[in-house]
Amino acid sequence: MNTGARITVIGGGSSYTPELVDGILNHYEEMPVEQITLVDISDGAEKMRIVAELSRRMIEQRGRKITLDTTLDRRAALKDRDFVCNQFRVGGLKARARDESIPMRYGAIGQETVGAGGFAKALRTIPVVLEIARDLEELGSKAWLLNFTNPASMVTQALLNHSNIRAIGLCNVPINMQMAIAQAFGVQVDEVGMDFFGLNHLSFARHIYIKGRDVTREVLHATTDAHQTLANIPAKEWGDDLLQAIQMLPNSYLRYYWFGDETYRQQTADLDAGKGTRAIRVMAIEAELFKTYQNPELKEKPPELQKRGGAYYSEVAVSVMSAIYANRPREMVVNIRNGHALPELAIDAAVEVSALIDGRGARPLYSGLMPNAVRGLIQQVKAFEDLTVEAAVTGDRDIALAALINNPLVPSTDVAAKILRDILRENSGYLPQFELEG
Amino acid sequence: MNTGARITVIGGGSSYTPELVDGILNHYEEMPVEQITLVDISDGAEKMRIVAELSRRMIEQRGRKITLDTTLDRRAALKDRDFVCNQFRVGGLKARARDESIPMRYGAIGQETVGAGGFAKALRTIPVVLEIARDLEELGSKAWLLNFTNPASMVTQALLNHSNIRAIGLCNVPINMQMAIAQAFGVQVDEVGMDFFGLNHLSFARHIYIKGRDVTREVLHATTDAHQTLANIPAKEWGDDLLQAIQMLPNSYLRYYWFGDETYRQQTADLDAGKGTRAIRVMAIEAELFKTYQNPELKEKPPELQKRGGAYYSEVAVSVMSAIYANRPREMVVNIRNGHALPELAIDAAVEVSALIDGRGARPLYSGLMPNAVRGLIQQVKAFEDLTVEAAVTGDRDIALAALINNPLVPSTDVAAKILRDILRENSGYLPQFELEG
Amino acid sequence: MNTGARITVIGGGSSYTPELVDGILNHYEEMPVEQITLVDISDGAEKMRIVAELSRRMIEQRGRKITLDTTLDRRAALKDRDFVCNQFRVGGLKARARDESIPMRYGAIGQETVGAGGFAKALRTIPVVLEIARDLEELGSKAWLLNFTNPASMVTQALLNHSNIRAIGLCNVPINMQMAIAQAFGVQVDEVGMDFFGLNHLSFARHIYIKGRDVTREVLHATTDAHQTLANIPAKEWGDDLLQAIQMLPNSYLRYYWFGDETYRQQTADLDAGKGTRAIRVMAIEAELFKTYQNPELKEKPPELQKRGGAYYSEVAVSVMSAIYANRPREMVVNIRNGHALPELAIDAAVEVSALIDGRGARPLYSGLMPNAVRGLIQQVKAFEDLTVEAAVTGDRDIALAALINNPLVPSTDVAAKILRDILRENSGYLPQFELEG
Amino acid sequence: MNTGARITVIGGGSSYTPELVDGILNHYEEMPVEQITLVDISDGAEKMRIVAELSRRMIEQRGRKITLDTTLDRRAALKDRDFVCNQFRVGGLKARARDESIPMRYGAIGQETVGAGGFAKALRTIPVVLEIARDLEELGSKAWLLNFTNPASMVTQALLNHSNIRAIGLCNVPINMQMAIAQAFGVQVDEVGMDFFGLNHLSFARHIYIKGRDVTREVLHATTDAHQTLANIPAKEWGDDLLQAIQMLPNSYLRYYWFGDETYRQQTADLDAGKGTRAIRVMAIEAELFKTYQNPELKEKPPELQKRGGAYYSEVAVSVMSAIYANRPREMVVNIRNGHALPELAIDAAVEVSALIDGRGARPLYSGLMPNAVRGLIQQVKAFEDLTVEAAVTGDRDIALAALINNPLVPSTDVAAKILRDILRENSGYLPQFELEG
Repeated sequence: MNTGARITVIGGGSSYTPELVDGILNHYEEMPVEQITLVDISDGAEKMRIVAELSRRMIEQRGRKITLDTTLDRRAALKDRDFVCNQFRVGGLKARARDESIPMRYGAIGQETVGAGGFAKALRTIPVVLEIARDLEELGSKAWLLNFTNPASMVTQALLNHSNIRAIGLCNVPINMQMAIAQAFGVQVDEVGMDFFGLNHLSFARHIYIKGRDVTREVLHATTDAHQTLANIPAKEWGDDLLQAIQMLPNSYLRYYWFGDETYRQQTADLDAGKGTRAIRVMAIEAELFKTYQNPELKEKPPELQKRGGAYYSEVAVSVMSAIYANRPREMVVNIRNGHALPELAIDAAVEVSALIDGRGARPLYSGLMPNAVRGLIQQVKAFEDLTVEAAVTGDRDIALAALINNPLVPSTDVAAKILRDILRENSGYLPQFELEG
Repeated sequence: MNTGARITVIGGGSSYTPELVDGILNHYEEMPVEQITLVDISDGAEKMRIVAELSRRMIEQRGRKITLDTTLDRRAALKDRDFVCNQFRVGGLKARARDESIPMRYGAIGQETVGAGGFAKALRTIPVVLEIARDLEELGSKAWLLNFTNPASMVTQALLNHSNIRAIGLCNVPINMQMAIAQAFGVQVDEVGMDFFGLNHLSFARHIYIKGRDVTREVLHATTDAHQTLANIPAKEWGDDLLQAIQMLPNSYLRYYWFGDETYRQQTADLDAGKGTRAIRVMAIEAELFKTYQNPELKEKPPELQKRGGAYYSEVAVSVMSAIYANRPREMVVNIRNGHALPELAIDAAVEVSALIDGRGARPLYSGLMPNAVRGLIQQVKAFEDLTVEAAVTGDRDIALAALINNPLVPSTDVAAKILRDILRENSGYLPQFELEG
Repeated sequence: MNTGARITVIGGGSSYTPELVDGILNHYEEMPVEQITLVDISDGAEKMRIVAELSRRMIEQRGRKITLDTTLDRRAALKDRDFVCNQFRVGGLKARARDESIPMRYGAIGQETVGAGGFAKALRTIPVVLEIARDLEELGSKAWLLNFTNPASMVTQALLNHSNIRAIGLCNVPINMQMAIAQAFGVQVDEVGMDFFGLNHLSFARHIYIKGRDVTREVLHATTDAHQTLANIPAKEWGDDLLQAIQMLPNSYLRYYWFGDETYRQQTADLDAGKGTRAIRVMAIEAELFKTYQNPELKEKPPELQKRGGAYYSEVAVSVMSAIYANRPREMVVNIRNGHALPELAIDAAVEVSALIDGRGARPLYSGLMPNAVRGLIQQVKAFEDLTVEAAVTGDRDIALAALINNPLVPSTDVAAKILRDILRENSGYLPQFELEG
Repeated sequence: MNTGARITVIGGGSSYTPELVDGILNHYEEMPVEQITLVDISDGAEKMRIVAELSRRMIEQRGRKITLDTTLDRRAALKDRDFVCNQFRVGGLKARARDESIPMRYGAIGQETVGAGGFAKALRTIPVVLEIARDLEELGSKAWLLNFTNPASMVTQALLNHSNIRAIGLCNVPINMQMAIAQAFGVQVDEVGMDFFGLNHLSFARHIYIKGRDVTREVLHATTDAHQTLANIPAKEWGDDLLQAIQMLPNSYLRYYWFGDETYRQQTADLDAGKGTRAIRVMAIEAELFKTYQNPELKEKPPELQKRGGAYYSEVAVSVMSAIYANRPREMVVNIRNGHALPELAIDAAVEVSALIDGRGARPLYSGLMPNAVRGLIQQVKAFEDLTVEAAVTGDRDIALAALINNPLVPSTDVAAKILRDILRENSGYLPQFELEG
């Protein structure tokens, strides 16, 4: 008989892993863990070795009996698991740098999860995620796949459309919004309620509650301080006019849709100033982090990890795992099958909504028509996502072009065609589903 | 007892009126007409006098007994009518010139029916159309209001949301597409069938039939010649890649959404070359036309009218009127209440779809899910339209800003705010519903 | 090249065939016909010979060049057809007699198209219809299957669920309602409009129009005479209270649902009086008819055919065929895929609604929420139909029981179980899909 | 500042009150209570005095500081409340006796919550509940109305359609099902999960879970013992065939729909044997209970209360109240607005579904298409409920007749008309909304 949960982490060599291990240790009482298996590809073996050693020191320091092992054999690591966490990155930070820079050649925003960059990342990532799903299906696994790999919305959509496994897509932005509100009101985070809906990186807190009392107006009007500042996206205030027009608290990624001009100008300025794209800056942070990780005296998550972005990532992951494992109901924002939560999107759409997590998985708690002010944008981006998933699975260039034409961050059909050409050419090693152009 | 239909034309002084009278004369056997009343505002009285005289000569030349009278008393002209045709323009061509130029100040496309220009025209037009509807309601009228006044989609939407009168929105683009296909295949126009759906100026022929046979592939692949060229929008081919990705024949206005960059560059080049906006060019054509109209020897629609745009405008108007009047079923593309024709739009949305017209009015013939490749764009623009109608009725600046933020042809929130400021300021004489800014 | 339509009639030996041939001759100008092929099973060969000879005399009398041939090879007769008409009856009138009598053993209504009798007929008929569909699919046929075989709703549903062929379900009740209204108002039948919706034998004219004018109130309140009396179902007035409560003109079959008690008492009284069920009476009529048909001097449809029921059957069939064949739009009531016509039923439900028939097939013209007063009954019966189709295809007894429990004419679960047992036992020769009970 | 919840109980003189008080005392730690106010009409004043005295003895015995007062001024008792519990009965047990007996005169089932009896009770009850709602609205109350008064489904529906107050409909059947399953599996009740859906007294546990594991098959196949036996409805096993066909655990009230024949025979036999209807038997039990209550030595809920029916009634009421009061999330089955939980019912339909209760109220957790085997019955009964609510509010006899025609337990239109006549005549004192018949 198991003495605790068995967890596999794909992309185990990521600098995030110590954060995840720290979270597991913090919630050990609620969810005892028997085994953590890190998986990575051979290029990541050395990094995986480093994080594995740090992780073992962390476990020992806290006096827990958790086996932490590593492997390059992904399929083997999927057997007999309760949870599989995806946190890998196909093509690494170099691919991210391309995702961020190709669109900018043609005047479009360069970002790794939205716009044409998110499109490129989806094309590379979805086939790999579906291979993992295929393995789990063939193994008859009952594991829950918790996916953090971006673009989380399209990855979850691909899993809904093309697999039968149990999957939940996760993101740390909603919990950061909740944390910021808790801090602003001086309450515990679980005393903050949010009616949350939308798509990953395109979502909104429609109503906000403190201990069951609706405080939405206060949040929108008084406390602009309540808006979170996340490390990995440019900080910017929404402005009173916009919040007045929208009447909801937006996910910080909305700036790409609403302030595209300015964001693009800033990105261009950063590039011109020699700062490089975000990927370039992250590479430097990572190099530092791995140096730190190798210090044999380090036995806990180092404070420098904060700079990496992804704050409270482990909080989200471990909260979901323990709610399922212990059948302990908990309201969280996750990416799951719509059903009828948002009736203006398809039943099978992957959406980001408030949900009840317990032993039966995740059930949407949100239900309602979307406000006019954001409905159209959400529907437009979901059409883009549907087309992108189809293109990623079929390798059909026509559908890929249709996808990009539908992305609000791609200015025109001509630009879409050029960006598509460059993406396919420069990612060819990762896109076997697309035939090479003659 | 009536000896024929009684028709009122609001905006009767328009240069289009002889086209409409010509159409009525051509279909007289199918729909006898007893009376045509032209209505205009005092500023248009002289033009109305000119077109009324030409129209009377045309009627006499064809040997019909139709009373044609003119008035400035709009409400009086709405009594005891079978049909009321809207073809007026609030603010005239000068307002159109502003609609076309304000957005261009901030890098956005300037067009009178789509984008920020269409938004401005909607704000001016909707209150006037709703006054007409109010008059018809108070008169207990059973007249059909046939609306050609642009933006036809939002005007129809406003009538659906805020009146109980019987209204149908009309546009000449679909019939031009049908005509072009008929010509390309060498058949009669009523032998061409189209499964047509979308919004006005954002619509698609999904399947095309000749005598009941599906010829969509032939139209899309072989006969690029089949695409119509309309006088009032820049000609441009779609390109094989795009048609391949979309798999439908698009309304020519799609170029504003799909080739915005290029269209904007061309508009800018025209301006720089001193050509002015389209409104400026139309003013010159109109001046010429009215000179021609005054020739007492002219007893028929002059060929120069073609240049004005609006080809087959009268064909659409008279076909709808006669199908209703004679209870003679006819399939046409019109703007009406969605019902469940397009289940991914709201039941009360105004949509442009194939419909059966007969004595009972217009019933949608289309039903189906929209293709991913265009669904999102249609939903996004419909959200813009809903917000614009709400702003036009309430005069709420927040909603007006939310509308512009949702328009795909407005690049960012900052630009939206600037355009909105200029529109409200420069149209203030026509926008009593909005309070003046402090 | 064809010189006219090619039509196959399955169940060609039916006494109805001369009616159909008469209709074809009446509409020959609109739809020239080249060939009519009658198909039947060997048991029906003699009857088929008789109707074929009469039919040929009728054709010759009218001076038309139509080849009329007969065959027992059904699949061969499906090749190169424009239309295939189903009018066969699996098990003949003997099976019908069982359908009518088994339910009455347990206190339930005995009728061949509704209630437990319709259920039994569906189990026998659906597998045969699906064999025909399979043949048409394998032949790559583009023929339209026009199905008159009852229960028409469930047969159409089975074709929608389990085949890809082009099928339309037909019934003569709606045209009889339209005819009766035309007569009552002294107008032509095509001047009567009906907003018609529901399921076959459970349908309603919600609004009725004469030349485009709504006359529903007049029909419901003044002219009880306007209600049709069909030969094959017991005549009965609805009563003012009921029409007041329903506010629509019901299909005459509604009496089984609304006046079940009385109908059952009358059926029992008929049986006790030695009249037998309707099947027994029809057998006698048929015997007479076939005697008449054999008279070599008879060269037209004999008046006695009226007694058989099915008035205007050929009018419906030929109107649909000629509208499709000549691409001539015509509004008719047919059984087709719902789409979104009735949003409270499933998209794939077979429904009976007003539709536009032309060369592209049948497109629903009705759209709207169903009135509370009948919505529930329609939904309940559709659930019964869905379960029955599933039982007919799978031979699953549990689903068959669930179907009967859901039929409003079956009083309880105990009765359902007994009726099911008897139906399966006494129809075993026609129900190979069901395993014999141990 | 409040030191605990303030609760008003309408129908406070009911024999159930000590059960409710007991529940409040049992959950005092979770939800402290400051005041309980009992309200009744003057006819119930003596009974209210008796239960108030017993309740005060119970409170004192447990050493709590709760003020318990009584009043005949209902509106005054609605001020400043956290919760208002409806447990009153318009017309008392005498009216119930009529509800049970009128239908039986015409061969229909006599029951107070389903069939024609439930219809009659709805007509009497809905106007009174809407008066309470009106009072709460006028008082600007934020109280939650917890309604136990039957027919709970139609009462909740009326509140949804005709008020803006916060209301939740409650029933003790679902918790009894959950309790029975817990007992059968030897687990705690909160370790049993149910995917629950339908309408009140017409609902189903679709899936059943023990600690997150799906045990539906085990419940349906092995443990027929798991089915609950409720005191106030005849015990009866479903039978293997039926459970096989339905594949869900039904609410015990389904017997009225599925075994109507047998239930009717048993009701008739009871009447013939002089046992009277259930109302008559309850009157005797009540008389006994009130005798017991008056014993000044009695200081706790007496065991005889069990016989009264309504087991775990207080468990449901107090669980909902404390989850809301303490903002402590708890999954329960309640009657609330559908939203999109059951997409085959209207958005505004009152449905009985699994929901998450916390400080924000009740949010549906269920979402899915209903199985064919029960979908139709639920839709049919919901149509009956919609019509009944409309009749109760408008007093329209036509709609009342349409309602009864739609009830599956009313055999025919003729019977419906007779039952309606008797109900209106014999309840005239309680039905001011209906005009007296001439």
